Amino acid sequence: MSTKGDRLWGGGYEEATHPLVQRMNASVSYDQRMAREDIVGSVAHATMLRDQGLIEPSDHVAILGGLAAILKEIEAGTFEWVEAREDVHMNIEAALRDRIGAPAGRLHTARSRNDQVALDERLWLRRRLLGLAARLVELIGALSEQAWDKRDWPMCGYTHLQRAQPVTLGHHLLAHVEGFERDLDRVLAVLDRMDVCPLGAGALAGTTLPVDRNKTAALLGFSRVARNSLDAVSDRDHLLDTLSAAATGMTHISRVGEELVLFASAEFGYVKLPDAFTTGSSLMPQKKNPDMAELIRGKSGRVTGNLVSLLVTLKGLPLAYNKDMQEDKEPLFDAVDTWEDCVVLLRDMLPAARWQKKTLADALDRGFLLATDLADVLVGHGVPFRESHERIAVLVNALVKEGTTFRRAGATRIAAELGVPREAVADALSVRKALRKRDVVGAPHPARVGREARAASRRAVKMAAEVVRRQAPCEAEVLLAAAG
Amino acid sequence: MSTKGDRLWGGGYEEATHPLVQRMNASVSYDQRMAREDIVGSVAHATMLRDQGLIEPSDHVAILGGLAAILKEIEAGTFEWVEAREDVHMNIEAALRDRIGAPAGRLHTARSRNDQVALDERLWLRRRLLGLAARLVELIGALSEQAWDKRDWPMCGYTHLQRAQPVTLGHHLLAHVEGFERDLDRVLAVLDRMDVCPLGAGALAGTTLPVDRNKTAALLGFSRVARNSLDAVSDRDHLLDTLSAAATGMTHISRVGEELVLFASAEFGYVKLPDAFTTGSSLMPQKKNPDMAELIRGKSGRVTGNLVSLLVTLKGLPLAYNKDMQEDKEPLFDAVDTWEDCVVLLRDMLPAARWQKKTLADALDRGFLLATDLADVLVGHGVPFRESHERIAVLVNALVKEGTTFRRAGATRIAAELGVPREAVADALSVRKALRKRDVVGAPHPARVGREARAASRRAVKMAAEVVRRQAPCEAEVLLAAAG
Amino acid sequence: MSTKGDRLWGGGYEEATHPLVQRMNASVSYDQRMAREDIVGSVAHATMLRDQGLIEPSDHVAILGGLAAILKEIEAGTFEWVEAREDVHMNIEAALRDRIGAPAGRLHTARSRNDQVALDERLWLRRRLLGLAARLVELIGALSEQAWDKRDWPMCGYTHLQRAQPVTLGHHLLAHVEGFERDLDRVLAVLDRMDVCPLGAGALAGTTLPVDRNKTAALLGFSRVARNSLDAVSDRDHLLDTLSAAATGMTHISRVGEELVLFASAEFGYVKLPDAFTTGSSLMPQKKNPDMAELIRGKSGRVTGNLVSLLVTLKGLPLAYNKDMQEDKEPLFDAVDTWEDCVVLLRDMLPAARWQKKTLADALDRGFLLATDLADVLVGHGVPFRESHERIAVLVNALVKEGTTFRRAGATRIAAELGVPREAVADALSVRKALRKRDVVGAPHPARVGREARAASRRAVKMAAEVVRRQAPCEAEVLLAAAG
Amino acid sequence: MSTKGDRLWGGGYEEATHPLVQRMNASVSYDQRMAREDIVGSVAHATMLRDQGLIEPSDHVAILGGLAAILKEIEAGTFEWVEAREDVHMNIEAALRDRIGAPAGRLHTARSRNDQVALDERLWLRRRLLGLAARLVELIGALSEQAWDKRDWPMCGYTHLQRAQPVTLGHHLLAHVEGFERDLDRVLAVLDRMDVCPLGAGALAGTTLPVDRNKTAALLGFSRVARNSLDAVSDRDHLLDTLSAAATGMTHISRVGEELVLFASAEFGYVKLPDAFTTGSSLMPQKKNPDMAELIRGKSGRVTGNLVSLLVTLKGLPLAYNKDMQEDKEPLFDAVDTWEDCVVLLRDMLPAARWQKKTLADALDRGFLLATDLADVLVGHGVPFRESHERIAVLVNALVKEGTTFRRAGATRIAAELGVPREAVADALSVRKALRKRDVVGAPHPARVGREARAASRRAVKMAAEVVRRQAPCEAEVLLAAAG
Repeated sequence: MSTKGDRLWGGGYEEATHPLVQRMNASVSYDQRMAREDIVGSVAHATMLRDQGLIEPSDHVAILGGLAAILKEIEAGTFEWVEAREDVHMNIEAALRDRIGAPAGRLHTARSRNDQVALDERLWLRRRLLGLAARLVELIGALSEQAWDKRDWPMCGYTHLQRAQPVTLGHHLLAHVEGFERDLDRVLAVLDRMDVCPLGAGALAGTTLPVDRNKTAALLGFSRVARNSLDAVSDRDHLLDTLSAAATGMTHISRVGEELVLFASAEFGYVKLPDAFTTGSSLMPQKKNPDMAELIRGKSGRVTGNLVSLLVTLKGLPLAYNKDMQEDKEPLFDAVDTWEDCVVLLRDMLPAARWQKKTLADALDRGFLLATDLADVLVGHGVPFRESHERIAVLVNALVKEGTTFRRAGATRIAAELGVPREAVADALSVRKALRKRDVVGAPHPARVGREARAASRRAVKMAAEVVRRQAPCEAEVLLAAAG
Repeated sequence: MSTKGDRLWGGGYEEATHPLVQRMNASVSYDQRMAREDIVGSVAHATMLRDQGLIEPSDHVAILGGLAAILKEIEAGTFEWVEAREDVHMNIEAALRDRIGAPAGRLHTARSRNDQVALDERLWLRRRLLGLAARLVELIGALSEQAWDKRDWPMCGYTHLQRAQPVTLGHHLLAHVEGFERDLDRVLAVLDRMDVCPLGAGALAGTTLPVDRNKTAALLGFSRVARNSLDAVSDRDHLLDTLSAAATGMTHISRVGEELVLFASAEFGYVKLPDAFTTGSSLMPQKKNPDMAELIRGKSGRVTGNLVSLLVTLKGLPLAYNKDMQEDKEPLFDAVDTWEDCVVLLRDMLPAARWQKKTLADALDRGFLLATDLADVLVGHGVPFRESHERIAVLVNALVKEGTTFRRAGATRIAAELGVPREAVADALSVRKALRKRDVVGAPHPARVGREARAASRRAVKMAAEVVRRQAPCEAEVLLAAAG
Repeated sequence: MSTKGDRLWGGGYEEATHPLVQRMNASVSYDQRMAREDIVGSVAHATMLRDQGLIEPSDHVAILGGLAAILKEIEAGTFEWVEAREDVHMNIEAALRDRIGAPAGRLHTARSRNDQVALDERLWLRRRLLGLAARLVELIGALSEQAWDKRDWPMCGYTHLQRAQPVTLGHHLLAHVEGFERDLDRVLAVLDRMDVCPLGAGALAGTTLPVDRNKTAALLGFSRVARNSLDAVSDRDHLLDTLSAAATGMTHISRVGEELVLFASAEFGYVKLPDAFTTGSSLMPQKKNPDMAELIRGKSGRVTGNLVSLLVTLKGLPLAYNKDMQEDKEPLFDAVDTWEDCVVLLRDMLPAARWQKKTLADALDRGFLLATDLADVLVGHGVPFRESHERIAVLVNALVKEGTTFRRAGATRIAAELGVPREAVADALSVRKALRKRDVVGAPHPARVGREARAASRRAVKMAAEVVRRQAPCEAEVLLAAAG
Repeated sequence: MSTKGDRLWGGGYEEATHPLVQRMNASVSYDQRMAREDIVGSVAHATMLRDQGLIEPSDHVAILGGLAAILKEIEAGTFEWVEAREDVHMNIEAALRDRIGAPAGRLHTARSRNDQVALDERLWLRRRLLGLAARLVELIGALSEQAWDKRDWPMCGYTHLQRAQPVTLGHHLLAHVEGFERDLDRVLAVLDRMDVCPLGAGALAGTTLPVDRNKTAALLGFSRVARNSLDAVSDRDHLLDTLSAAATGMTHISRVGEELVLFASAEFGYVKLPDAFTTGSSLMPQKKNPDMAELIRGKSGRVTGNLVSLLVTLKGLPLAYNKDMQEDKEPLFDAVDTWEDCVVLLRDMLPAARWQKKTLADALDRGFLLATDLADVLVGHGVPFRESHERIAVLVNALVKEGTTFRRAGATRIAAELGVPREAVADALSVRKALRKRDVVGAPHPARVGREARAASRRAVKMAAEVVRRQAPCEAEVLLAAAG
């Protein structure tokens, strides 16, 4: 049960807090993950207060020194978090008071927990999204390399999980690269849209003291300052943006996961996952299960759940801050952690996958994947497409009944039945030629696949540099390091 | 990085596991919450194995003794959980091997982690749902008491958050009792539907050993045995049932939360929440915020998110067990914890709320809540309802323009304008009489409200007994206690 | 733009309604689906009013006659629905007024649209859920028949989509029967829980007129009367129950859909779907796509979306009726329609599926599905399970490296390596014997599968009768038919 | 039941389609909304085919003429949609064949329904998102005007729905402008990210014919061409982006809706909604319900549901096209329609709202909103903030017990108790001065609010021009118009 001393707001209170209330009210068990951001924010705030003459230079020095020391304790794992102090902000403030006394009390000048938490979330998110961007770039790079390597490995392309037309493994891998590049773009867009400093909004109505919000924002590396104090403390759009991007990104990953599960099955046999990425069964000695592929497929559930969680929580809340918004952190943290883990896993697992070139090629020889190419032969001889399509469909149906395939029926017979030259049919039924005929932008001609793979690699290198540039520490972090 | 010795399935493996794989693969950080259930299940399984002659009586004694000792360590917090051992099952099995040697290896006879985890989840859920049922009963009891106490406190009834017709506070509280009773019914229905023992399903295809599944089920207090082994290990309906019930239950709670936030506002002023259930502001000294009411409103988000999480994860999974299903526990645990916390909070907070009788009554005197009663007077004098409605609407509109109310306009004038006896109008405009006229089943006549409150109390007492009856320990728990 | 005459509540209004407001406010485009229920409810209400002396017998006769005539128009598709009349209730009331004049105005005595819509939803839901139950019973029956027919067709059982242990196709099909039986149970539970008549709750506070709520409830076939008027008009639990059950049921269906897509692929080749249930490609002449299997997998999305939709809408609403609740119908209607369509589709498609007995059996002979059985042989010779597991895992690994299988390696060699009698190994490697050894409750021994299939069929017959019993028309429906 | 002639893929089929299959398979009932886009896409495709010499100029003329005529029929409502022709694409193609004969068959050259539907969705979405952007700009403009008008109307600012600090109504309205501007930004970002032409991807693997994808893209106003054919037909990110933005946007709208419901209540009384935007009760003659505010709050549910629907549907789908994806359109259409309706409604309703200046101001005089300002006075006199906070909290508590307020207690007494000059206290307790003291960026000083309102208006004007610029018809639309 908390005592007045722990509750920084206890002045008007006469009753102790109900124990369950204290536990439910406290967020420190999870928001302590934003400790570094909380401290960096305080460094910037204190520095601005000093520059504006709102606190003494000596207070500033004491505050920065105290904060640096506290951060060291936190990073060393020796800091004692107190639930009765509710959250990361109050824990650090109280520790600062214990350590430096009166000046600590001045740090809260012209600041409220409402704008403080809004700031911390943005700083935390900035750091994590940049990390995620870096991991996505690595995944894209790794996939592009593999796509280059497998640019000319023939493979069945599927629609409806039915064999449809020939592609190459490299082409297939590059399809996923496209999705991951869009994910990266989304992450960077979230970063740009959230590049707004809420500090100075106070609890909801700004402050009566002559703060310099642009100064604080600059110290923290923000481009802009929030234009409206009520919005600054109640806006959680950047969290929704992140969760939306994460849900979409995890949907991509679930699709890759599903494919790996399928391709690693005995029935497909397209890929062997290395021991390092499978696990066995405690009962069935023969099993090597694609657990990781399954897990990343399944984890799309938790991230979609996280998104829904925050959408429901925010629904119908009037301005400005409401306590409901304390529920914003856990889904955010979980979604970002999960997404990053899955990206890292794919980054390491996909290059280690052992694709089975022969099995991939053999599958192409069975079935009727080149039926469209045969229809194109008819079109080339002046038959309207719809009629060509129908004639080939009838032919396929007849062959299926005979239990044979194009390959086994042979070009001569097929040419005779269709009334076109044998050579044209033979050409149409060559996988190698079929791939080379698909020679338009985005199609699986191996040379095109190779060029696209190289282009994707180059884009990844460029994006990596951009992410590094953005990861440079802001001025407040430099000040903090200097104070340590 | 795990070594063979830790991985119980490592026989066919030559590579070490990737560190991230080990972490993502491991569930022990959260599934250790099912340790008691895992041990109780093993006690039942071992006892059945002994009775069937599949293990020696001496092995049985050793296993039960070992398990009892391990449970003590776990409950004392001294048990060492090892991530490389993946999950609660393997941790306990390995600890048992360390402790009793060879007989530990025989415990896994005719059992797989697939049926084991299916069992543990059911046992855990049974315990927690019964606890939740008990808390719901207490909440219903507390609310019914308060409803009895406030059965005749007049209050505005609202639709569209507009004052509509008079009710009593007791009547309003009983509306929520109805929802909580349905929640309780849902919880009990989940318990009944999941009262099926999966043990003996093995990994997916039963077992070749002559186990007695009915025996194990009886030891564990189940009424039935799963009829199909594939279903037994892949069915997670009881989790979906629980999460669905939780999402609905939390929706109820969110509605109570919203009302408390509204009613505690300065504008309504209907209730004062005691200090023990509010918190202050670190910036604004005057604030006493209804944080708990807001939190329970907001937490409907996380529980809806948990439900979505599992629905997405299970979507499209083929039979039987898939690793994706490891993701089933965290949303389940979180939802049950959250729901129970919120029920307990309401149970304690609602009786402590200080309802403001005078403010509630004053609000009734403003506005036109008795317009429907006036319309009923016309109906009583033979005017068709639709015409009555229109005439009263015109009257109200005129009074609003004058800036007056029924009360201030007075019965004489209104009676004259409507062409009905003054006495009938005066009767219609008396809140006390208006309430007493609402004398049909479910209506707010204070005597009816009182009877309904008493009936709800009686039902709660009866349900409490039923829950206690169901909470009696099963035979396996008794054996475990005896072995301790 | 609506005029006063159309708006039954227009008495106090001086401005016309904004056109978009009229459109958004109107629900008649979709709630007209409850027209029959609205009319049946009115028949019951009018009959009770007459019995209580609240309306004249002649009015009752006129009302019933008018309603019966209107219903005929509606069913004939000649009824003119008017958007400006907002909803199904006002459309029918206005049509009744046009048809029978003054008595129509008396029908709304002691009733509000709030309790009326609450009633209509329950009646509509009762009818539709009973229909759904009937379809589920038919699906269960059809699946059970097929399971009986295929009770001894050997098939790979899967975990992690890896071949795991032998089962039979009948056993596999029965796993899905279990899920559908739980779905049926859930539907019946929803029906029981919602068997409560809200009529008489008025807008929110009951009525001042001496209605007999039990009489109305009895006429409509309800067992109970809502105990609290506020709850009666704001409770939407039965909708959430239905949507929860639908989301779970559709998750089951999505799993069957996924399996059909997999099994119909060239790689598995386990099943051929008949032409009537596949569609072709407009481009690729050879394709026969399992569109229906895909669609029923994908439609789990819309139903989970429907559930979320209503949970979000209801979150945080204060008592009693709020306009937000108008949004409750479309997700409900869509979910029930979708679920029923998918059940019907499966009911017809599954019996028409052509399972490929030889392909199913061949898959069993490749791979190492009987590894667990081999481990059991060692256990039978006194080796602790964990050690047996490890030795078999090492053996499998060695054989995989050699590129051979148990079958090709042969029992003699394996027996030698394991140090057990050849005969025991040969037995363990016989699929036929392996299935017959799995002779415990719920395991795939063909005789057991047959018994379970027969038992499921019997349960389906019994449930069919129960559903028919519940579908008997209520007294109000009989009165309506008589008036027509 | 469809006949071969209707099914463009029927060549290999011998059985008729099951009636339910035909209905479930058909999407024409809703995808006909993309008819214009389908036709525009065909115009561009045909034009490119002609330029590449793949069809004759005369065919091109016939095709364009036929398509223009068909579009006219569609827009006139006289076009006959045939369910058996499945979707919008096949309906239009068949109609074209009926109208112009053989050349119609050549239009499908080098195109598949897979890339065609991907294109149509992008074109439809582009048109609708630009329309939505225009509406958002209008809403922002309208709100900014109102904010300018009310820039100095004092109003309570809230946190936790408790009166917290003074703001102005203009300031409050501008908070919502911020959210709507972010929504607009998100819409434009979706438009940019989806500005990629999928045509030429064929069914999944490009085409063997020498198409010019860049030409087609340019005719349709796209900046880029999809780089990978598999991704082009299976990517639905732009739908997820739209739905995510819509869910966030509707969350904003739900918050405005909640505030309007609150502010229109008798208890708050801050706003009167005009008759055109409220509706009455069919039972209670006095009611004017804020139905529209409730509806837009509730409709956040359906849009969040739509988002979840598509996330679930896409989860775990392997490449490339799967039939599940047919389920992508209804949630998209519904979400865009709903969002736009709600934006339009707010655009018209908010300017018509009659804000109650006096009621807003009166609320400020009750309570203790200026407690923070009082604490700031102490800070100004050298008291550390935490101590100031505590002393004011104690003071407030004492006054509450007395049943008085700051205003009634008076500056003299308060100054004495706090030991600070009377004038400082009087200044702190003046709302007018309090607002003027909040003179930092984003704070509610009326002059700042005015400047922000003007700046927002200017941004809206600029964005309006940008949207108009983007709405210019593409070349294919010009060609189509010329052919009509």
